[in-house]
Amino acid sequence: MSDGVAKHKVVIIGGGFGGLLAAQGLNKQPVDVTMIDRRNFHLFQPLLYQVATGGLSPANIASPLRGILRKQRNTRVLLGEVNGFDLAAKQVKLKDGTDIPFDSLIVATGSTHHYFGHDQWEQFAPGLKTIEDATEIRRRVLSAFEKAERSNDAAERARLLTFVVVGGGPTGVEMAGAIRELALHTMRYDFRAIDPAACKVIIVEGQGRVLGAFHESLSAKALKSLNNMGIEVKLDCHVIEITADHVMVKPDGGKGEAYRIDTANVVWGAGVKGSPLGKILATAAGVETDRAGRVPVNADCTVGSHPNVYVVGDLASFKGPDGKPLPGLAPVAMQQGQYVAAAIVRRVKGESPTGHFKYWDKGAMATIGRAQAVGESMGFRFSGYIAWLGWLFIHVMYLARFENRVLVLFQWFWNYVTRNRAARLITGERSADARSS
Amino acid sequence: MSDGVAKHKVVIIGGGFGGLLAAQGLNKQPVDVTMIDRRNFHLFQPLLYQVATGGLSPANIASPLRGILRKQRNTRVLLGEVNGFDLAAKQVKLKDGTDIPFDSLIVATGSTHHYFGHDQWEQFAPGLKTIEDATEIRRRVLSAFEKAERSNDAAERARLLTFVVVGGGPTGVEMAGAIRELALHTMRYDFRAIDPAACKVIIVEGQGRVLGAFHESLSAKALKSLNNMGIEVKLDCHVIEITADHVMVKPDGGKGEAYRIDTANVVWGAGVKGSPLGKILATAAGVETDRAGRVPVNADCTVGSHPNVYVVGDLASFKGPDGKPLPGLAPVAMQQGQYVAAAIVRRVKGESPTGHFKYWDKGAMATIGRAQAVGESMGFRFSGYIAWLGWLFIHVMYLARFENRVLVLFQWFWNYVTRNRAARLITGERSADARSS
Repeated sequence: MSDGVAKHKVVIIGGGFGGLLAAQGLNKQPVDVTMIDRRNFHLFQPLLYQVATGGLSPANIASPLRGILRKQRNTRVLLGEVNGFDLAAKQVKLKDGTDIPFDSLIVATGSTHHYFGHDQWEQFAPGLKTIEDATEIRRRVLSAFEKAERSNDAAERARLLTFVVVGGGPTGVEMAGAIRELALHTMRYDFRAIDPAACKVIIVEGQGRVLGAFHESLSAKALKSLNNMGIEVKLDCHVIEITADHVMVKPDGGKGEAYRIDTANVVWGAGVKGSPLGKILATAAGVETDRAGRVPVNADCTVGSHPNVYVVGDLASFKGPDGKPLPGLAPVAMQQGQYVAAAIVRRVKGESPTGHFKYWDKGAMATIGRAQAVGESMGFRFSGYIAWLGWLFIHVMYLARFENRVLVLFQWFWNYVTRNRAARLITGERSADARSS
Repeated sequence: MSDGVAKHKVVIIGGGFGGLLAAQGLNKQPVDVTMIDRRNFHLFQPLLYQVATGGLSPANIASPLRGILRKQRNTRVLLGEVNGFDLAAKQVKLKDGTDIPFDSLIVATGSTHHYFGHDQWEQFAPGLKTIEDATEIRRRVLSAFEKAERSNDAAERARLLTFVVVGGGPTGVEMAGAIRELALHTMRYDFRAIDPAACKVIIVEGQGRVLGAFHESLSAKALKSLNNMGIEVKLDCHVIEITADHVMVKPDGGKGEAYRIDTANVVWGAGVKGSPLGKILATAAGVETDRAGRVPVNADCTVGSHPNVYVVGDLASFKGPDGKPLPGLAPVAMQQGQYVAAAIVRRVKGESPTGHFKYWDKGAMATIGRAQAVGESMGFRFSGYIAWLGWLFIHVMYLARFENRVLVLFQWFWNYVTRNRAARLITGERSADARSS
């Protein structure tokens, strides 16, 4: 490393699935890697809903980036916030004024919530993207039961015990299932004035079926599982208003007559858009983000006419074989990260470029509740217990890659046997608490 | 419970060691128990320093009160904040305007930080009493290493890598040891620009020895262990100023010449005072709190001339056989909680009162670092590995009482073998983060 020759500098922005796999693909290669992230950890987002419902602790699904990359001696981790690019000068600009030079740039800052022009809904309907989102939703869900226990007003109680999940995709289905289980099993005997099992969980989905990305037969199975758990699913139903105490919805694909659902608890699982850095990069590169704020990329994941600037993962809009952008899934990001790392290595070594990026679709899974999931892979479709075991296996395998996550497995096993959720803590209102103490 | 006869109502304020043991002592007794706490969990405070240094997750040392008391059918848990008493009308007043009637009252709201008239120090030198305190200290400690990694200024780096712990009691010794281990072992290979092992950890203690509550020989052993770990201990040294970038201290019992320690990280482990509710109760009961804000109690833990109002734990000033107040230790609180529960049961059943409360001092322990601790019990003194094993055993046994804490044991075992600390997450600046995204 101190041989005097300036190595090819790769800067990676974002330590999610795409960025991390890119960094790991550059291990032991003749490059200097700088991984920049605002947070000091890699987050396993697919399990955030478990934190939001008290099943796991934040540290169970987050690994310090420095820890993951500690043995990768050509890589340094830099905690910082990027707010600009000078692609001509090959520099990344940090908020604190520092410029970080690069030869190749990989941007993988993912996605954030998308309220479709209704940003005022965010305060009432938090989404689920960060650790703080998850502990905030946990605080709200648990606090709702606490307030209901103390209320003497039947309407107020019903409102507090009604949970509306906007969006029937994997996140929405998982959240709804987990809240219902929390109430029905974990906290069943915890209260004296209310029966937690009387809580209502409602999924509002704009399309005609839940899990729209899956085969129709699996959507039907998921719907049946949800109904069996006592979860109400409103299909073809559009949300038109969200406030502190109710949600207004329009049925029949938005053409029916609007009606009101009284609720104190709304979780947003409906839409995501590219992170704000996408727009800044697109402008710098002379391209335009799509309607979901994603950066259109070429077939080799580069941006515009910049052969050394890559975007991977949720932030990229990569046209699949059907002409539609690839979905915002962890496997897409991981494969793109690996692809780009290999492409950079070939370029640095002077080898001929590989072919275009091809997404190998190994399938997808969604869990609904205790021992219930659906999955499809290479033409096969699974559901029920066997799909749930598959889901468990794949998630534990992934977590095990970065750190020994045997603890997560123990925690799950324990939760499964006892129906307990140990992380049911209402935390995080530090300043409010300090004031009132 | 619905037999028509109004049962004797016991209200317990605070779900710490004292309050919880009192509640459990009233299980299956002919009383109605209401446990009021601002938080929804019992916190195992002796292990908070492990959360503050990334070794354990908050949920590992906190158990939901409802979960602990779920099977105790004569007990309800009420999340709320008490801000007043009407002892004549036998009512507890909640902040939200509700009055809770009682026949017997047990106040066990513990203690909070005491800055000895320098409340402005709190922002620079957080103490360690709540989950939020611990994650805040964790955020600061980890962020200091991150900032040092990015700094090009040698003085700034040294300042960021200097950690001052005020107070050489068990909390201070444990925090200092854990920070040093975090730097020396856990994060040793995590950075590229700095050597974490170059960090300085300094304990500033006003008295002539650390662990002043222990026998002098154990203080000497602890001091030797601390020095062996590379921790600097300044004895007889008074802190006279704390700011964002330095601490001013006066050596020689405050009589020496003041000098400056440049540091960006100060942790407060020096003093505690009774929680603010103590003063409100004392006023209502016609007594005066002592200098540390504790409520003086009679030999049966009652307050003033109120035979049905008890204070237990850290908030109580109970004169021990030597005329000094009993120390603010978990075993004192637990024994007082049990004693008061038994006293109430005897009173309700019309039995003659038991004798005065007697503290059975089973001993005390403090851990210093990896496989190093000191302890004394019934005239015997232990140190080193054997004391550490004893410490481990007692803490796991206690945790196991309330919930199956086998996970904590696994986590410790794993940390011990790998020297890893999985919960090294910088979290909690949600609003700041959201703004800048």
